[in-house]
Amino acid sequence: MREVAVIGVGQTEVGEHWGVSLRHLALEAVQAAMADAGVVRADALYVGNMLSGELEGQEHLGALVADFAGLRGVEAFKIEAACGSGAAAVRMGYVAVAGGLADLVIVVGVEKMTDTLGPDTTAALAMAADADYEAAHGASFVTLNALVMRRYMHQYGYGHQDFAPFAVNAHQNALANPYAMFRFPVSSEKFRRARMISDPINLLDSSPICDGAAAVVLAPLGETRHQSMATVGIAASAVGTDTLAVHDRNDPLVLAGAELSSQRAYNAAGVRPADIDLFELHDAFTIMAALSLEAAGFADRGRGLALAADGEIGIEGRIPVTTMGGLKARGHPVGATGVYQIVEVVQQLRGLAGENQVPNARVGMAQNIGGSGATVITHILERI
Amino acid sequence: MREVAVIGVGQTEVGEHWGVSLRHLALEAVQAAMADAGVVRADALYVGNMLSGELEGQEHLGALVADFAGLRGVEAFKIEAACGSGAAAVRMGYVAVAGGLADLVIVVGVEKMTDTLGPDTTAALAMAADADYEAAHGASFVTLNALVMRRYMHQYGYGHQDFAPFAVNAHQNALANPYAMFRFPVSSEKFRRARMISDPINLLDSSPICDGAAAVVLAPLGETRHQSMATVGIAASAVGTDTLAVHDRNDPLVLAGAELSSQRAYNAAGVRPADIDLFELHDAFTIMAALSLEAAGFADRGRGLALAADGEIGIEGRIPVTTMGGLKARGHPVGATGVYQIVEVVQQLRGLAGENQVPNARVGMAQNIGGSGATVITHILERI
Repeated sequence: MREVAVIGVGQTEVGEHWGVSLRHLALEAVQAAMADAGVVRADALYVGNMLSGELEGQEHLGALVADFAGLRGVEAFKIEAACGSGAAAVRMGYVAVAGGLADLVIVVGVEKMTDTLGPDTTAALAMAADADYEAAHGASFVTLNALVMRRYMHQYGYGHQDFAPFAVNAHQNALANPYAMFRFPVSSEKFRRARMISDPINLLDSSPICDGAAAVVLAPLGETRHQSMATVGIAASAVGTDTLAVHDRNDPLVLAGAELSSQRAYNAAGVRPADIDLFELHDAFTIMAALSLEAAGFADRGRGLALAADGEIGIEGRIPVTTMGGLKARGHPVGATGVYQIVEVVQQLRGLAGENQVPNARVGMAQNIGGSGATVITHILERI
Repeated sequence: MREVAVIGVGQTEVGEHWGVSLRHLALEAVQAAMADAGVVRADALYVGNMLSGELEGQEHLGALVADFAGLRGVEAFKIEAACGSGAAAVRMGYVAVAGGLADLVIVVGVEKMTDTLGPDTTAALAMAADADYEAAHGASFVTLNALVMRRYMHQYGYGHQDFAPFAVNAHQNALANPYAMFRFPVSSEKFRRARMISDPINLLDSSPICDGAAAVVLAPLGETRHQSMATVGIAASAVGTDTLAVHDRNDPLVLAGAELSSQRAYNAAGVRPADIDLFELHDAFTIMAALSLEAAGFADRGRGLALAADGEIGIEGRIPVTTMGGLKARGHPVGATGVYQIVEVVQQLRGLAGENQVPNARVGMAQNIGGSGATVITHILERI
């Protein structure tokens, strides 16, 4: 097995791009990543995407993006794991390069959620849950998370306002990220007064519906070093899964898939949580941020909120999270999110995160989650 | 890079399974393949599927099938490349095992096309084509193939009846395949009188809309040999892509992606077309069977039909195709088809194809196509 480096990154601004099609979003990210890497070809292209069929009437994104990006002929597939599709595609790229099956792989995550064919986007997102045993009974992704959040508040004695620090931190970090969707701050007070979506989840607990694409170029470490920037290697790429339906779990407050995925990643990289300098976690809802911190070993069970309350999740904190705005404020174009996370970790490890730079960032972790914790992909990256 | 073996295969009967859900179809195939391989666990599960979101309201099949099959926790993703999704998933499994990232991978292709949520299945299948430049103008998958078929007839001077041998051969071979959907023969005369679908494509030029699942278990060659059967290794796994839209091609009668994919496979395996004992080709429509034979080097351009007319595609012919019924008569549950093809090649190479056994089959090829030739995945398998 070879070590793998991220030799190029690219991203589009996240937002509601009513005038830009899915293929153009993907193209912009791929071209940016290829330019950053200084490459003009690839051995394979893997596309992370969840809902192009349902929302855009377009499957078969591998061949579509390959052709549109000038890579006609190349191996190209779409990889899907609900909101974890982006990191799943990165994982497949990692497998191909690490195993020696490919020397240059482009991975692009893309999602187009505005300007859709008509189906309700919330209903489409519910396809990440169990169609027969959750969605068929009216559960949406928001309501499932609301149940988990309510249970968390009940079990550990928190109030809704205790979740505010995640949203406040995410919006604060998005301010200086030109690719973020929401470049404005939110206060605790604004969080308190935000419109209710599905009790106890309000608007500022939730990530937005939006469009975006992000891409990375992977190559064997050592063979291709970036001319002018720090080299970033992938120290671990790991996956863990759990039941698709939340009600099938012994404890709905434990992300067993995330525990498994994190542990596998720590073992592969030979690191512990204390070695991680920043953590791009999957804050689709504030409750998921809390549960992720706990599953990944940064907080004891029921203490994820306390970590946030203590100010430890900020850029200068013990474990900075969502350093460029996270799903909440950078935005959550679902199949693209996992690649955005990797791009942002690379920015941090290269020391190019600008105002959001985590001091002396050397090891960064990105964790992308599909469904309510059913598929969890963890990547640990390291500045070489 | 390690050599990879197919150590287990499983399949469900193809048909209209109104009373069986997608997860149960997948389970049946996975359990059969695991039993055949004699394994009770796996390092990864890759699911080939195209339309579960559009037709069943269910994405996220990786975690769903992993959990339902008793593999909770395992790495699991869905791989999509339109009608080539099945072989694309096999390709990803091959990459993982060949590269040493996994020692035991289960690949299942599954598609549920009956008992759907409501969208028109023909419209859903058109998502394999270019949504903006083909489907948006009313093109369906049948009409695109009809245009290509008409052009082929015009350019090479064939009549519709010249395509009959493909359908006759497929139905003949399905007779003895207990997993085939159409176990009845069709004559040339029946072909001539079949109902017109999209001129010149009639009902017997077309593969059916149906349900099914097939699975394989992959492991390093040598480490795990089947106790009582011939070992089957994967001598080549190769992908080629082409423009998504047919109108973007220099010549719509040349499957450039299939030429590329075949050539890459031949090079990897160190074989020529003359070395192939059977060819499971992608006969979604009879025209695709002809074009595939030409692209893979079994016939000169415009001569694919002649090969069929000369009786060379039968079990005892020069290049037996669709030996268990093919897409036409075994059936074409789109995301499962590529895995069915591999399963059938393994049956042949193990010498367990019963009445359809190709004598002394030692090298078999399976070629799965997504879209109108936009993604082409070729596997060459070998009896060790």
